[in-house]
Amino acid sequence: MTELLGMALPIVAAPMGGGPSTPELVASVSDAGGLGSLAGGYQSPEALRTDIATVRRLTAAPFAVNLFAGGVPGLDPIAFEQAVTALGPLREELGLPLRPALGAVAPALEAQIEVVRGEAPAAVSFTFGLLDPAAVDELHSAGCVLIGTATSVAEAMAVADAGADAVCAQGFEAGAHRGTFLGPGESSLVGTLALVPQVCDAVAIPVIAAGAVMDGRGLAAVLSLGAGAAQMGTAFLRCPEAGTSIPYREALALAVETSTALTSRVTGRLARGIDNRLMRTLASCDVPAYPIMHALTSELRRTAGVQGVAELMSLWCGQGVAMGTERPAGEVARLVANDAATVLADTAAGCTSHQRG
Amino acid sequence: MTELLGMALPIVAAPMGGGPSTPELVASVSDAGGLGSLAGGYQSPEALRTDIATVRRLTAAPFAVNLFAGGVPGLDPIAFEQAVTALGPLREELGLPLRPALGAVAPALEAQIEVVRGEAPAAVSFTFGLLDPAAVDELHSAGCVLIGTATSVAEAMAVADAGADAVCAQGFEAGAHRGTFLGPGESSLVGTLALVPQVCDAVAIPVIAAGAVMDGRGLAAVLSLGAGAAQMGTAFLRCPEAGTSIPYREALALAVETSTALTSRVTGRLARGIDNRLMRTLASCDVPAYPIMHALTSELRRTAGVQGVAELMSLWCGQGVAMGTERPAGEVARLVANDAATVLADTAAGCTSHQRG
Repeated sequence: MTELLGMALPIVAAPMGGGPSTPELVASVSDAGGLGSLAGGYQSPEALRTDIATVRRLTAAPFAVNLFAGGVPGLDPIAFEQAVTALGPLREELGLPLRPALGAVAPALEAQIEVVRGEAPAAVSFTFGLLDPAAVDELHSAGCVLIGTATSVAEAMAVADAGADAVCAQGFEAGAHRGTFLGPGESSLVGTLALVPQVCDAVAIPVIAAGAVMDGRGLAAVLSLGAGAAQMGTAFLRCPEAGTSIPYREALALAVETSTALTSRVTGRLARGIDNRLMRTLASCDVPAYPIMHALTSELRRTAGVQGVAELMSLWCGQGVAMGTERPAGEVARLVANDAATVLADTAAGCTSHQRG
Repeated sequence: MTELLGMALPIVAAPMGGGPSTPELVASVSDAGGLGSLAGGYQSPEALRTDIATVRRLTAAPFAVNLFAGGVPGLDPIAFEQAVTALGPLREELGLPLRPALGAVAPALEAQIEVVRGEAPAAVSFTFGLLDPAAVDELHSAGCVLIGTATSVAEAMAVADAGADAVCAQGFEAGAHRGTFLGPGESSLVGTLALVPQVCDAVAIPVIAAGAVMDGRGLAAVLSLGAGAAQMGTAFLRCPEAGTSIPYREALALAVETSTALTSRVTGRLARGIDNRLMRTLASCDVPAYPIMHALTSELRRTAGVQGVAELMSLWCGQGVAMGTERPAGEVARLVANDAATVLADTAAGCTSHQRG
């Protein structure tokens, strides 16, 4: 994996849309020898081009741009109205008009790919589905390494078959949206420790392990499972370079390993975050599919962030959240990689002396 | 952990009640240098004494006896009748009388502890709760090492506070019953990769990692996370020494990483097994708490096993099931430990050359 991109550290910073993954965070991780990832999925082509340029001003190191390959589903008008009704009282509480204005639901993937093809970052990662063969060929011709996302062995094989050069295996523990694209999200909840070795056995391309890797121990563990690198998101959320809002940071600092839950109701796609009133209010509500529900709740969540109402924000993070720190991102990447080397050497030595004893 | 019991291999065979954990399986793992575990929770004092004697005829090596420390809840008569009604058609299908005869719900823990105190196995493990201080003192006086079970950091701290000498941290991936005793089972679904390092940071006693460890890669991973040993259940289910029935073995051989689900409806306590018609039939049914529901479904599940109807059995296993083999148990234990040492040495070497490069 690291050879594929000439990375000095086996660490990918996860693309974290909606704020956390700033160009500064991406550049900091890439500059340290890892692979930073711009969260391009929510961005207009113009904003994406600007962010790519910003990263390039900050570092000459390779970085990735992440895109959403899932497509946009049709609208379920009954679920739509149910969701609007459920959101009303929460919007009122924040002083917003009862009914959300629904703007553009999602930027066009084709236009984003056009930008990425022109800019040719070292890597393009994708989630929620597969890139079509034409896009794969175009991006390969532009020199981009392609990284797909899988939450099961079958998805990993589909990612490899689609022409990706590496696959990110996303375990149950991982924060934010799940990349599941074969079947419902609930059918692919496989712990990182179970998923990674089985994906490694099934595909010939390098595997990046995502889910609960927070420190040198976690990185050592997933390298032992056969991964070529770890993708870490939650570990970077509290870094000074991250665009994580203050109330979000405060909630992260207080969270423990049982603080998170999975919900498909906040955005219409299964995601892990700190369990709060927004999740509980929507728990029994029918909602339209992603990205429509995402668009329906985004003003509410953004406003809650501005007003410091963490209970009505989306506080995406993984189950390792309590192991997070506030160190600069490049330092986190270097420290985790160094600690992993030490952990592996010590554990190997302990194991050998043990076998002898 | 291994020093505590003089084990040559950092491997505990999980106690698997209802058949799989025979004295032969226990002895085979212990004899190889691991720690076999008798599943004492469901056993009468007499049967427990007999099984302990059988293990001792087969090996002089240390082994564990596992007990259920959860207590027995009161009966919810409405849920009881709902469950009886839901089970009726399934019982009829197997030629059983519509209404189950409910015999003894659970053997008395006190009587089991009395046997264990007299027999004094090297280790006593417990799950579903804590042993009371008197039992802890008695078993310590008898020379038993005590191992508690935790599914969260808070539970691990409670286990340590209760006087246990080690704690088994049971991750989300693990098969069969979850040991959760603080709050509902659904509130403690933490992946092994997230749970183990956080438990290691929170308690001073050795940690045994349970959940998805199936081979040398998995063992290397949890040792890297800080565990002193791994507890493996699913990895031993298809061994010739295991009492796993033929239809159960056949289902295990076909399962993949997404084949299992969690259910609290089959026994009244959250457990992981291969998703089947029994689980789906009971999915929306109110059921009485464990061990009452366990007793209500046991004749049905046993009969289904005899008749080869896997769809109506409990097919408990973890998310690593597809990595299982049919090797003898002692060979599995030795192979996993040896492979872990190789994996750690190779991964450490790869990491070091990487850091240099």
